[in-house]
Amino acid sequence: MSETLELAKALIAKPSVTPEDAGCMELIVEKLEPSGFEAEFLDFGDTRNLWLRRGSARPLFVFLGHTDVVPPGDPAAWIFPPFEPHVHEGKLYGRGAADMKGAVAAFTVACRRFVEKHPDHAGSIAVLLTSDEEGLAVDGVAKVVEVLQARDETIDWCLVGEPSSETKLGDVVKVGRRGSLTGMLRVFGVQGHVAYPHKARNPIHQFAPALNHLVNEVWDEGNDHFPSTTFQIANIEAGTGAENVIPGHLDVQFNFRFSTELTAEAIQRRVAEILDHYGLDYELDWRLSGNPFLTASDEIIGAVQQALREVLGREAELSTAGGTSDGRFIAPTGAQVLELGPINATIHQVNEHVAVADLDALTEVYEQVLGNLLLRG
Amino acid sequence: MSETLELAKALIAKPSVTPEDAGCMELIVEKLEPSGFEAEFLDFGDTRNLWLRRGSARPLFVFLGHTDVVPPGDPAAWIFPPFEPHVHEGKLYGRGAADMKGAVAAFTVACRRFVEKHPDHAGSIAVLLTSDEEGLAVDGVAKVVEVLQARDETIDWCLVGEPSSETKLGDVVKVGRRGSLTGMLRVFGVQGHVAYPHKARNPIHQFAPALNHLVNEVWDEGNDHFPSTTFQIANIEAGTGAENVIPGHLDVQFNFRFSTELTAEAIQRRVAEILDHYGLDYELDWRLSGNPFLTASDEIIGAVQQALREVLGREAELSTAGGTSDGRFIAPTGAQVLELGPINATIHQVNEHVAVADLDALTEVYEQVLGNLLLRG
Repeated sequence: MSETLELAKALIAKPSVTPEDAGCMELIVEKLEPSGFEAEFLDFGDTRNLWLRRGSARPLFVFLGHTDVVPPGDPAAWIFPPFEPHVHEGKLYGRGAADMKGAVAAFTVACRRFVEKHPDHAGSIAVLLTSDEEGLAVDGVAKVVEVLQARDETIDWCLVGEPSSETKLGDVVKVGRRGSLTGMLRVFGVQGHVAYPHKARNPIHQFAPALNHLVNEVWDEGNDHFPSTTFQIANIEAGTGAENVIPGHLDVQFNFRFSTELTAEAIQRRVAEILDHYGLDYELDWRLSGNPFLTASDEIIGAVQQALREVLGREAELSTAGGTSDGRFIAPTGAQVLELGPINATIHQVNEHVAVADLDALTEVYEQVLGNLLLRG
Repeated sequence: MSETLELAKALIAKPSVTPEDAGCMELIVEKLEPSGFEAEFLDFGDTRNLWLRRGSARPLFVFLGHTDVVPPGDPAAWIFPPFEPHVHEGKLYGRGAADMKGAVAAFTVACRRFVEKHPDHAGSIAVLLTSDEEGLAVDGVAKVVEVLQARDETIDWCLVGEPSSETKLGDVVKVGRRGSLTGMLRVFGVQGHVAYPHKARNPIHQFAPALNHLVNEVWDEGNDHFPSTTFQIANIEAGTGAENVIPGHLDVQFNFRFSTELTAEAIQRRVAEILDHYGLDYELDWRLSGNPFLTASDEIIGAVQQALREVLGREAELSTAGGTSDGRFIAPTGAQVLELGPINATIHQVNEHVAVADLDALTEVYEQVLGNLLLRG
């Protein structure tokens, strides 16, 4: 059994449903402390964070990951129990196998091997882990970044082990993420009896033309790096349940995934303009989960593409699609952030799994990336 | 204390929250049996119905009412306890004072007095009471009508004591009601993640243009007797509660109040055409609460208008506005149905009340109506 597989299995065996770490980080510390990494736990609220760094020089390369997993759902729907790792027909099954304990094991082993071979590498290497990426993500990487910035510890390159691959390992590398902005709208009407609509004001009816406008709006055309901004309503609710009552208000929750062509402020302004245009009486609250970011520099992208060519003979597509990741907290510090990890086909599903061969290949790719960046000159 | 007030107070003292009768009907039987009315209880399920008839000749005039009341809500919000009748500043307070124990008392006393004065009146007089008008109304008047029809007992005129008056007693008489048709719509989409909208199909977005169409549609222009048909959405609901999930379906419940210009079938056809026009994948169930009806004959309308002029010096406006009543079950038998009762300003509210003077005047009007119809020729 390979070192990466062994470590991945040990991690999966710990039922670290978000925001639990369940002892995963201790395993990583045991693995890397002998190689000269210094461990620092940075706990906030019920979130555990680990900062493991070897060396103090710049440039600083960081592997970013999380030990928490999403809940397994109905355990009976799994072929193997979700927290009992099994290898079956070349695949490792278990919650977190792909998102992202497999990648955490791979980059941990890559770090150990690289340092063993090149104890005098340039710069520094760090591993940053959190136990709250799948949850609120309030006390995780966001807080660690504040600590690092307060003591002028600057990240130059950050490789996130999120499962970026689509159908083959390394076919997609994420070089940015769209922004995510959520709106919580309440439209006010006047409650009444359906038999007397002239004495009431139906907020659903009032909202209808604005809704039609919002869902047909073209927010932008995207750009070379980003698809166009999307608007999706996730929840809508009005009514007392009674069939003869015109409701007094309507609640709508919607989310924007937006490109670098737009800002949160610009979106908020345009939504307000649309709602105002239709004369609605409303309250609107916003929550910005993350601004869009893009790694435009060739340095880390080149190092990763070269490693993929060398190990897998593959050229990755550079993408900014998909959901948010903790990379959104690192990018604003000026670091070059990139995401490369296993195939994401089974994440957040039952029978989550990853090919064992991919775990070993990913370990090699990660080690090669370190070499490409820290053995130059 | 007048005979009507005394009876109304005795009825209010019985807490007959729908579908309870709580002994109200027994009071009416005691009052009218000595005058030659024969009592027949027709109970279905938990609903009590009373058919009290004097005579067997046609034409048959029926006073229709209900002994059940809507729940009182918070008793502490009442000036007087809802089931303890109080007269205060000329007004009788209590749940059901206006809807419609006051009217039941008035037409009971009117029957007793009229028969006493005119024991040899033409035709027959009946009082029909149910204990489930405010509830589902499934085992109430609808079932009694079936019984009457099965034994060829035909109603010619029906006066419903529902509170039709707006600001002055007798200012409005209802000569028909709009139909009521409820639609329960489910629009199907494809659930997914808000970050990947191209892999999902948002049913809220799909429905938006159809919604806009529906709320702006002019269903008809009404006619001389009916206001135009109204469409109101009472409930709308979609979403898992999570802010990053595109919902798989959308539920919408709406209600039509429709004029005699339309039929339920015509409305159903037009709604389906609109939904189909926008290519929606949907299921739609309908429930028809009642077809519109109109009392076009001058006979009962003339008798009531004449009585209002004689007793109150007032000409009533003929209206078809407002909600449904049990008259919808009588009208389809071919009877001429009309509604005349107290001022409806406080019905279904706390501190429901009716002017004592109005109860006495209403008793006189009801008695006069009997005279106008059954003493002719």
